Amino acid sequence: MKWIRFTADGHTAYGSLSGETVTEITGEPWGDDTQPTGKTHRLANVKLEVPVIPKTFYCAGINYATHIREMAEKRGVKPVFPEKADIGYRASNALIAHEEDVVIPAHAPPKMNYEGELVVVIGKQAKHLTEDNAFSCVFGYTIGNDVSERTWQRADRTFWRGKNTDTFKPMGPWIETEVNLEAMDTVVRVNGREDLRFKTNDMIFGIAHYIAAMTKYMTLYPGDVIWMGTDGTSPDLVHGDVVEVELTGLGVLRNRFIRAGQ
Amino acid sequence: MKWIRFTADGHTAYGSLSGETVTEITGEPWGDDTQPTGKTHRLANVKLEVPVIPKTFYCAGINYATHIREMAEKRGVKPVFPEKADIGYRASNALIAHEEDVVIPAHAPPKMNYEGELVVVIGKQAKHLTEDNAFSCVFGYTIGNDVSERTWQRADRTFWRGKNTDTFKPMGPWIETEVNLEAMDTVVRVNGREDLRFKTNDMIFGIAHYIAAMTKYMTLYPGDVIWMGTDGTSPDLVHGDVVEVELTGLGVLRNRFIRAGQ
Repeated sequence: MKWIRFTADGHTAYGSLSGETVTEITGEPWGDDTQPTGKTHRLANVKLEVPVIPKTFYCAGINYATHIREMAEKRGVKPVFPEKADIGYRASNALIAHEEDVVIPAHAPPKMNYEGELVVVIGKQAKHLTEDNAFSCVFGYTIGNDVSERTWQRADRTFWRGKNTDTFKPMGPWIETEVNLEAMDTVVRVNGREDLRFKTNDMIFGIAHYIAAMTKYMTLYPGDVIWMGTDGTSPDLVHGDVVEVELTGLGVLRNRFIRAGQ
Repeated sequence: MKWIRFTADGHTAYGSLSGETVTEITGEPWGDDTQPTGKTHRLANVKLEVPVIPKTFYCAGINYATHIREMAEKRGVKPVFPEKADIGYRASNALIAHEEDVVIPAHAPPKMNYEGELVVVIGKQAKHLTEDNAFSCVFGYTIGNDVSERTWQRADRTFWRGKNTDTFKPMGPWIETEVNLEAMDTVVRVNGREDLRFKTNDMIFGIAHYIAAMTKYMTLYPGDVIWMGTDGTSPDLVHGDVVEVELTGLGVLRNRFIRAGQ
């Protein structure tokens, strides 16, 4: 089932999406007391919003082997593989929706990269889960593009500019509750041309492992998101490039990159 | 003026605090359409909550000279001072209110430390501010204790366990809109005995500098918080220790540390 967060007539709500029809609900789709409002909309008549503003915005970071090898090669250093599932963070100011523009600041260095990622959306409050019951807190999945400026990423003590500049975190277009992770490919297209393809579930530390590790220490809340990391590497993107991140069977997240002042 | 977020009769709201009287309002105190609800409460009859759940939880990290020198000495390394105002992040799962307990996980290493911090609470959406008008987006100030387990902080690739384990981020007790930053001392007491005192505003990069630097790249939103870092160092805290962080003229944030299973 697909759930979207949308704005219509100045009002933002959740709705289920079936074909081109949006059936509006009260509250959030993972809530206990969700009800249909009785309103329906045509998908073409609503503005898609970021599917959720998380309480905490988690990101696995380096979680695929080829990405680690290729990034190390680009930098002329030896690849370092993570020894354990140390979760990281991103910032909600940077979130934008499907079809909104990534705005590269006018003075930003040119190393603008995409990172296509599977996003896990939490639906139930959870602590002390095991790998066996980890999926019990998962509501569904969406798509993220962990846009990164590599010069800032390496120059700064934190990921504040390199990864959390406004508009650097496209997420959407919807949350899908039924997916086949084993069959899923992550496919990234730049200006319509396929640039990267990898098996989405070929992670170093899988979803169940991350959730079990995280919930030893921290409570996951409904609406939290966990971005699972990416494989491969991106070319340096320039003004006008359109990046599509497809997770097969789930959907396509499309965003144009523009450079401010051009 | 003091603002608290509180729960009474199962309902959470904001209210202004005058003496022992809480005057309840609708919405958030920085909102445009805030109204008194007509209800008042005795402070003793309400449960104080975390004063705000931020959209993005910012933290300056290393921002006082003595803290950097003493932490380097503890580790036997040379002190490294930050070259610029690289903002960092903390996680909302870890927030607890005044008088709630910091729960040290049963298996946590023993290097549990306090860090007493001034917290800036944003009241207006802001981008591209300068040092001259940076304070225009500030609603008020509260107190934070950036509780840290140092073994995890150094062992992990991110600050997930060392700083963002559940209950490791006490914040409160209230938001004060009128403060004298130049006259303010940060005073930390452990079990009633003064353990640390420093001039709150003796930061390497001040509030206006941080806000100007951050808003070149990111939008600050109402309810965002910026924890400004700490000076000095903490003893290793144990089960039963009570830590009070006082910002003179603002208030006292008090939390007991307990170790799970003891």
